[in-house]
Amino acid sequence: VSPDVRKSVWQNLSDEAKKESLFLLRFDEDDAAGLMTPRYLAIRSSITVSQALQFVRKGLQEVETVYYIYVLDQVQRLLGVVSLRDLLAAQDTAVIESIMEKDVISVLDKTDQEEVAKILETHDFLALPVVDSFNRMLGIVTFDDVIDVIREEQTEDVYKMGAMEGSADKYLETGILKLVKKRIPWLIILLILGTVSTNIVHHYGNLVLGAAFLFIFMPIITQTGGNSGNQSSTLMIRGLATGQIEFRDIGRVMLKEVIVGILLGLGTGIVILLRSYFLPPGADFMQALTVGVSLVFVVLFSTLAGALAPLLIHRLGLDPTVMSGPLMATVIDVCGLTIYFEIAKLLLHL
Amino acid sequence: VSPDVRKSVWQNLSDEAKKESLFLLRFDEDDAAGLMTPRYLAIRSSITVSQALQFVRKGLQEVETVYYIYVLDQVQRLLGVVSLRDLLAAQDTAVIESIMEKDVISVLDKTDQEEVAKILETHDFLALPVVDSFNRMLGIVTFDDVIDVIREEQTEDVYKMGAMEGSADKYLETGILKLVKKRIPWLIILLILGTVSTNIVHHYGNLVLGAAFLFIFMPIITQTGGNSGNQSSTLMIRGLATGQIEFRDIGRVMLKEVIVGILLGLGTGIVILLRSYFLPPGADFMQALTVGVSLVFVVLFSTLAGALAPLLIHRLGLDPTVMSGPLMATVIDVCGLTIYFEIAKLLLHL
Repeated sequence: VSPDVRKSVWQNLSDEAKKESLFLLRFDEDDAAGLMTPRYLAIRSSITVSQALQFVRKGLQEVETVYYIYVLDQVQRLLGVVSLRDLLAAQDTAVIESIMEKDVISVLDKTDQEEVAKILETHDFLALPVVDSFNRMLGIVTFDDVIDVIREEQTEDVYKMGAMEGSADKYLETGILKLVKKRIPWLIILLILGTVSTNIVHHYGNLVLGAAFLFIFMPIITQTGGNSGNQSSTLMIRGLATGQIEFRDIGRVMLKEVIVGILLGLGTGIVILLRSYFLPPGADFMQALTVGVSLVFVVLFSTLAGALAPLLIHRLGLDPTVMSGPLMATVIDVCGLTIYFEIAKLLLHL
Repeated sequence: VSPDVRKSVWQNLSDEAKKESLFLLRFDEDDAAGLMTPRYLAIRSSITVSQALQFVRKGLQEVETVYYIYVLDQVQRLLGVVSLRDLLAAQDTAVIESIMEKDVISVLDKTDQEEVAKILETHDFLALPVVDSFNRMLGIVTFDDVIDVIREEQTEDVYKMGAMEGSADKYLETGILKLVKKRIPWLIILLILGTVSTNIVHHYGNLVLGAAFLFIFMPIITQTGGNSGNQSSTLMIRGLATGQIEFRDIGRVMLKEVIVGILLGLGTGIVILLRSYFLPPGADFMQALTVGVSLVFVVLFSTLAGALAPLLIHRLGLDPTVMSGPLMATVIDVCGLTIYFEIAKLLLHL
């Protein structure tokens, strides 16, 4: 936007709109103050219900919602709230003081927008008042803004699970360099971590050269380990995000994942044993057994590691969404291949 | 719940609650009718604003929301809607007919709940009326139910991206067998698809035995290909889900991803070249160059394939969320390894 356009837009705003914009410009975008509107209904606690109703009917053109009326004192401090519903249900002669809800649930101007969304959602409110640290009313956040926050937050979480950091920009409007900047950091971090696997494979080099069939099944081992680990960490990340799982559930989670991991390992192990014994490129029975048994242990390990990692990362106060998925892939590659080669040594007496 | 408990709960319900439950039990859970409540305010079009306000004040204990009042005819057909705000803004003597909104946005009882969420969100309504195919009013869906739908839908999408089908159950309350049932189908499908890579690796068996360093870098090639493909498909899946990307954008998407893919490929290629030349286990220059050049092409291929797959799957009317991520991993393993071995043959004259 050119400065000229900006100037002409500004000049065409009403005085009221100018005042509102200047007020809102003082606040950050990502917290309650960034979402709020200063257009709400405020009354004094000493007036009657019928006076309040008259006031509502007069003021309703200028406000965002008429469904909550906030009760403020002379210095704008928030004393209470009355819903329009309660106002209509009350006697005309009742005083607001006697019908208002005094335990008002409000958020601070500095409260993070995701926190605001959660509070509004928990209480099924249409709007939440925003106050400063002196409990002075600044504005309201309404439910429609909160739905937008939930959607945006959802996009950012999905991006993080795909190993990308950054804001929920629209793909088609994002420039090439911004896309690369969003994507390359994690690709390179994961690449460098992943090179640990080259050292593992190199360590077992002679073993593999002595039993060439082993390297044929390497991609299967790492892939299936990665998939099962990914399932566990997805369940944990989502559980942590929605508050259904907490760190103190770690015992129950591990117990569950041990049993699930054994069953998943047996299922996939039997399938790969049959597949590699009966179908090309073909393996003899001991080779097929080696791959099958390895998969049982690799899947069990991956399932446990995939569940444990997000819980620990979360416990450390970090965000498991971006760190778990791809980090897991690396850990599982390294440990999965070690398990595989050790089981081969054991079963094939190499 | 035992039949005894169920019976005693039922007997303790009021007649009104029994009637309501029986009415709601006739509908599915996953559509508009499954979300709705029959407790709304309905008036006739011929009454005045002050009569309507009196009616609202009398009826407000029994309804879910008082903020929309629906105008029905004698056979319950939906003629219009008046918000409480409009009612308060109107003259007391005005007739409802003259102030009601006649173009009512409503949903059918059979409308899918995600569709209901989108409509309510687009219009920033507090509630939507639900009608049958004769436009007879059945109930309303309110915004708080819609927020729950958005959250649930989000969980299901996240599960699908982790290669799990099924409902958004709470992890800690889900039984072992149900968890296994949710997780094993995709694990086995992906395992069987993944075994195609065994045939590829077997095909290049003699090549690898002749240049043993090649198998050391196999996990790096497949992992980095998988990560970059995953980033592209995540961007596409999210863009398709939010409606920001459509199939007809395929040209622009491909153009963008070609350039992004080349840049990501060069970045990761240079890093792996330096890493494998200078650090243990160590590779000579031509070997490091082989791995580096391979990664440029594997990352470019993965980036394109990762972007193309969700667009094509979506075009076929299928859901890319569950199919793209892990399917991509398999395609990228198979094609990535082929690219890698072919480049090795070319550069090392094997």
